[in-house]
Amino acid sequence: MAIEASNEAGRHDRIRLGMVGGGQGAFIGAVHRIAARIDDQFELVAGALASDPIRAKASAKELGLVDDRAYGSYEEMAKAEAARADGIEAVAIVTPNHMHAPVAKAFLQAGIHVICDKPLTTTVAEAEELVALVRTTGRVFVVTHNYTGYPMIRQARAMVANGELGEIRLVQAEYLQDWLTERLEASGQKQAAWRTDPARSGAGGCIGDIGTHAYNLACFVSGLALDELLAELSTFVEGRRLDDDVQILLRWKGGAKGMLWASQVAVGNENALTLRVYGSKGGLEWAQENPNQLWFTPHGRPKQLLTRGGAGAIGDAARVTRIPSGHPEGYLEGFATIYAEAARAIHAARAGRKPDPDILFPSVEDGLAGVKFIDAAVKSSAGKGVWVRIG
Amino acid sequence: MAIEASNEAGRHDRIRLGMVGGGQGAFIGAVHRIAARIDDQFELVAGALASDPIRAKASAKELGLVDDRAYGSYEEMAKAEAARADGIEAVAIVTPNHMHAPVAKAFLQAGIHVICDKPLTTTVAEAEELVALVRTTGRVFVVTHNYTGYPMIRQARAMVANGELGEIRLVQAEYLQDWLTERLEASGQKQAAWRTDPARSGAGGCIGDIGTHAYNLACFVSGLALDELLAELSTFVEGRRLDDDVQILLRWKGGAKGMLWASQVAVGNENALTLRVYGSKGGLEWAQENPNQLWFTPHGRPKQLLTRGGAGAIGDAARVTRIPSGHPEGYLEGFATIYAEAARAIHAARAGRKPDPDILFPSVEDGLAGVKFIDAAVKSSAGKGVWVRIG
Amino acid sequence: MAIEASNEAGRHDRIRLGMVGGGQGAFIGAVHRIAARIDDQFELVAGALASDPIRAKASAKELGLVDDRAYGSYEEMAKAEAARADGIEAVAIVTPNHMHAPVAKAFLQAGIHVICDKPLTTTVAEAEELVALVRTTGRVFVVTHNYTGYPMIRQARAMVANGELGEIRLVQAEYLQDWLTERLEASGQKQAAWRTDPARSGAGGCIGDIGTHAYNLACFVSGLALDELLAELSTFVEGRRLDDDVQILLRWKGGAKGMLWASQVAVGNENALTLRVYGSKGGLEWAQENPNQLWFTPHGRPKQLLTRGGAGAIGDAARVTRIPSGHPEGYLEGFATIYAEAARAIHAARAGRKPDPDILFPSVEDGLAGVKFIDAAVKSSAGKGVWVRIG
Amino acid sequence: MAIEASNEAGRHDRIRLGMVGGGQGAFIGAVHRIAARIDDQFELVAGALASDPIRAKASAKELGLVDDRAYGSYEEMAKAEAARADGIEAVAIVTPNHMHAPVAKAFLQAGIHVICDKPLTTTVAEAEELVALVRTTGRVFVVTHNYTGYPMIRQARAMVANGELGEIRLVQAEYLQDWLTERLEASGQKQAAWRTDPARSGAGGCIGDIGTHAYNLACFVSGLALDELLAELSTFVEGRRLDDDVQILLRWKGGAKGMLWASQVAVGNENALTLRVYGSKGGLEWAQENPNQLWFTPHGRPKQLLTRGGAGAIGDAARVTRIPSGHPEGYLEGFATIYAEAARAIHAARAGRKPDPDILFPSVEDGLAGVKFIDAAVKSSAGKGVWVRIG
Repeated sequence: MAIEASNEAGRHDRIRLGMVGGGQGAFIGAVHRIAARIDDQFELVAGALASDPIRAKASAKELGLVDDRAYGSYEEMAKAEAARADGIEAVAIVTPNHMHAPVAKAFLQAGIHVICDKPLTTTVAEAEELVALVRTTGRVFVVTHNYTGYPMIRQARAMVANGELGEIRLVQAEYLQDWLTERLEASGQKQAAWRTDPARSGAGGCIGDIGTHAYNLACFVSGLALDELLAELSTFVEGRRLDDDVQILLRWKGGAKGMLWASQVAVGNENALTLRVYGSKGGLEWAQENPNQLWFTPHGRPKQLLTRGGAGAIGDAARVTRIPSGHPEGYLEGFATIYAEAARAIHAARAGRKPDPDILFPSVEDGLAGVKFIDAAVKSSAGKGVWVRIG
Repeated sequence: MAIEASNEAGRHDRIRLGMVGGGQGAFIGAVHRIAARIDDQFELVAGALASDPIRAKASAKELGLVDDRAYGSYEEMAKAEAARADGIEAVAIVTPNHMHAPVAKAFLQAGIHVICDKPLTTTVAEAEELVALVRTTGRVFVVTHNYTGYPMIRQARAMVANGELGEIRLVQAEYLQDWLTERLEASGQKQAAWRTDPARSGAGGCIGDIGTHAYNLACFVSGLALDELLAELSTFVEGRRLDDDVQILLRWKGGAKGMLWASQVAVGNENALTLRVYGSKGGLEWAQENPNQLWFTPHGRPKQLLTRGGAGAIGDAARVTRIPSGHPEGYLEGFATIYAEAARAIHAARAGRKPDPDILFPSVEDGLAGVKFIDAAVKSSAGKGVWVRIG
Repeated sequence: MAIEASNEAGRHDRIRLGMVGGGQGAFIGAVHRIAARIDDQFELVAGALASDPIRAKASAKELGLVDDRAYGSYEEMAKAEAARADGIEAVAIVTPNHMHAPVAKAFLQAGIHVICDKPLTTTVAEAEELVALVRTTGRVFVVTHNYTGYPMIRQARAMVANGELGEIRLVQAEYLQDWLTERLEASGQKQAAWRTDPARSGAGGCIGDIGTHAYNLACFVSGLALDELLAELSTFVEGRRLDDDVQILLRWKGGAKGMLWASQVAVGNENALTLRVYGSKGGLEWAQENPNQLWFTPHGRPKQLLTRGGAGAIGDAARVTRIPSGHPEGYLEGFATIYAEAARAIHAARAGRKPDPDILFPSVEDGLAGVKFIDAAVKSSAGKGVWVRIG
Repeated sequence: MAIEASNEAGRHDRIRLGMVGGGQGAFIGAVHRIAARIDDQFELVAGALASDPIRAKASAKELGLVDDRAYGSYEEMAKAEAARADGIEAVAIVTPNHMHAPVAKAFLQAGIHVICDKPLTTTVAEAEELVALVRTTGRVFVVTHNYTGYPMIRQARAMVANGELGEIRLVQAEYLQDWLTERLEASGQKQAAWRTDPARSGAGGCIGDIGTHAYNLACFVSGLALDELLAELSTFVEGRRLDDDVQILLRWKGGAKGMLWASQVAVGNENALTLRVYGSKGGLEWAQENPNQLWFTPHGRPKQLLTRGGAGAIGDAARVTRIPSGHPEGYLEGFATIYAEAARAIHAARAGRKPDPDILFPSVEDGLAGVKFIDAAVKSSAGKGVWVRIG
């Protein structure tokens, strides 16, 4: 049992964090809060936790926020916090998709770092505006494509970059769920309701909710950029207003090919995000539901099961590992790594120094790439399945 | 340990079998011979085992064929055997693809039943001619899409037909190998040489060699017919003359969607044929490399691991099972089931009675469907990735 | 994606926590700290983090403890904290084994709740003294047999208790590692050094370090008490002073049988804790390295894969679950559940009310059972493999 | 897809085989017949297929034996076949256990080679008598501990012998089933009836039926000989007359340790024979239900998944492999390898030459070792769990 480094910060150093969204009945807000706590780098001190001011305050009370920092609206919060000496340094945005852009804009303009859920925005124009604003303000901006925080995904990326797979030929990504097999949104279930509502989700349903995660992961690990895609968006459940399944052919720049399949109606799949990358010299296979393992086959040699913290694990993976091999880390630890990386960048900003070059998190540009991907897929499918070049 | 039925025939009853192809250096010929022996329904008594007469005779000697039934050519064999009172009743065709059509034609015209490897032919026209000839001659014609012989595939087909999955929405098939990751054909390796040679393989490489198996399996289990496809055929290995990877979007008649991916360059995959079928009420997942298992998820209930011969196995699977659950059957037993089903049809023909309605093997029409699939995929890809309707 | 309850407490309510041990170079201390943070129920405010005062203070500084609560010794800390109005309410003891008893005693006597690592003590007498002291003082005492915190272990326990397995016949536990395959302690590696040192570990090596975890889990899930055991303790690595492998036959009260195997030299195993329980009506199988799954076979029906948060998950598991199915929780979340359960008991004590009846954590009595198990195993092996009755 | 060698013999060369037992309602007889056919080395020409002459003849008719070689008793058959010029060269004995010894004796004395199911006999004295008789007669004698025929088991044995694991420390074997979870024998099920009847099975139930297989496999792969054992035989099902679960501690000569667990009441296990071997330099893990894989971990390096016919497969495995990697071979192919090895020995005897040194099958001495193992386990358990030295 090797001794592993902890990333703990210590209380005196914690970054003051606010949150927009994530109140009662939400899912991802609690995830962000746990992720922010795991490495003890953040302290949640303010929030506008719901769009409804009453529910926002009740939620804040439950979480132990002091009354004068439990805000009824994000605009109020951005303004008030910017004015406080002990105001928040960063905000976590965990609202439905359509609110990401206005909220992010408000806090960036208030000089506050942003940690924003995905997809970045519901339109390419908004995403581009945010990219510009991040450049202008110089604030840290993190998009929580959290699966990039898994150590074995870091390992996979490093192995591809190191040439262990040779020239990449195939990049295949899947993200399968089954929770929308029936018309759950009709039951009033809150998560289903907003995710299948174009006004809150944007033009993509499944493609935006989980397809972008798969796409982001494929890019992150392969290091490739997409050239063209051809997408089939399907809505299998009668009465649903957005796609619940998407199948895409990918032509990567440089000649690699691939397929991306995301579904919310694939019965028997809970959260089956998988990535497979094959090159001229080797192959890698990874599955999110058992994230501590990474299959690696050097061509012509036996298949190897690499493990987080185990033999064959390399520095890029070890750096974001908390506990020894065989002691599984999970979804929350991977998410926490995104927060830990954000913390490093924010500490650097606080100190007025350049961030360390090895800090790695999904940026606002990665967020923009995800929105362009959704946009192209929706256009391709609307055209009955035609090739669309990525802008 | 339950007692299982044996399908053994007994010596006196064996069907007299000939073989074309399958001599020294071949792979699939030996597979057919073992498959034919497992249930003791056939006796190999004649052969034209190689295109070269010298090698043909040497191969026959090794297999213990008597001299006067070790033929130098298939034409000679068809003629001579048809003339013998104890002539062969059936012929197994295990040559490279381009010879399937002429050999099958010769034996059908000689009144001999045919068991033919896949793909049926290298052109749609030849395949249609064979379909017509089978109808005219009334001979039994079996295409060895052998994966349909696996008990859990029979189970999957029956479960879909019984409505246990509800309305089918998604049919996903993969067939991944890695043995052509490098340019093996340049080394003179015989299997690689003919499979990458358009003159012997036809217009499709990977699509014909393994893509058709995946397609056949998808149709067999789902019971669906394909409406349109869009294919990307790639050749990743420099200098190769046929595709070594193929990615296809599928639009099934009735509205289901799907993807089919076949590759011979996916490093780390040996013979990874998998099938996943999802409907409005349930999902099925199967992988050839562990063929005795079938995952079944009835929507909203726990995932079940059905096993060959185990709890949950149904009659259609049990009928083609030889040994108790937990005692793995493999590729050869699945292949043998195709031969056992062929034997039942041939015995019926011998006796002048109608074949039992539950006999199930890939027919000449299924073979034609496979050739049309290859043809459409090649055309789609030649058109830079356009939708092609299945004829 | 179902919405899951968070157990977050909110800042105002946090329990004030101290820690003894867990300074620089330690492993389990950081684990306890993360576990304490995940559900936001504790705030670490004091520590005697190392036996060496200099290292203790340096460690405290790293963790952001204020100077006057960074103690040089546990005795000093117990005294000082008991005297403060804002003194710690609970202490986490994460020292080598031989210090558990004296430290626990000091804090109990100071009226402070204790969360203590395992094994409880190095002698049965010390363990019995602690049991008595807990009864006298009425303090909450938790032993971090953390694997009982996994949701699917809670589920397994509930299923056995509900009779879903019928009468229990077999309880098999394994805990396999390979990190001591070579003489790592000779290299000065700190974890290996104290674990193989009888003065710090007690009379058992592997049996105490991991064998007790397996035993605790077997008892926790099966609900059975052990009657007799027969143990083979082996030391395979030359020069090692304690056992590195232990194999035990178990006779449970009531007639069930079982085997327990723990090893630190089983090459290829990282942290392979597994439990299998079979009864007259069903069987359960669980493996720590993939802890979100539980195999359940009702006799005569298909094997089911139950998942944390998925179909078939029951209340006892759902209560300690944070995120939806398919989003893996890991070792740290299971450990955090022990802390969350402790928090509930401590809050009850704070409020002067009886703890809720569903609070579930390994108690001081469970700790004593573990020490008796070690003691019996050591005696059995010393007797060359004789049956020893559990006292 | 590598081309693999076929072991086919060709008709003219086939060994004339007889069978005792294996008629209607039997299980293992059909397995032997398929195994004998797979490589085309044997032709079944005579049989005394049941103890009841009427059923014996009916069974023979079904299998196509000619009338005058369908015998009503094994004594008659041994005598008649020995007198024929075209008499059988070998006999397969597939009766219940108590008949192995008398039948084997009769055929050995008639100069006929023997392929005998396991366990060899029901007493040590009978087994020793057979060993002596084999030495006197010089006949080939094979005990069908068929699991030694799996290629990856051959590979494992070779790797241990080659020192890839270093000095062996631990050998763990399990053989778990659940088909006797209830009192199946009371239903008249034939397989259950004789296996739980001391008069036909001998003094061991589970230990003899499957425990011996596990023991044989452990010895075969590890190359170790057992020194002492301590066994707990249990009968969990009320009214059953023999053990249905057995748990054994093993002390191997030379200092290695191990456990062996066999059960017929472990609900959820079909035929879960597994073997794990750990040494000072590496570990191996194998499971019969997925027999084409072998896990190998060289200490300190990543775990490798070796596959039959795949990268890392060595000559000893390749020699007994029929088809390419990824095309699963199963139970029947492993069994067939025992027959193929027997055929090689019989051909050598036929030709009056020494058998090739690489022929490898379980011998009469291995059969004796199995009977001694059963005997020692029964004695240990009768003594309430005492150590018994292997004679």
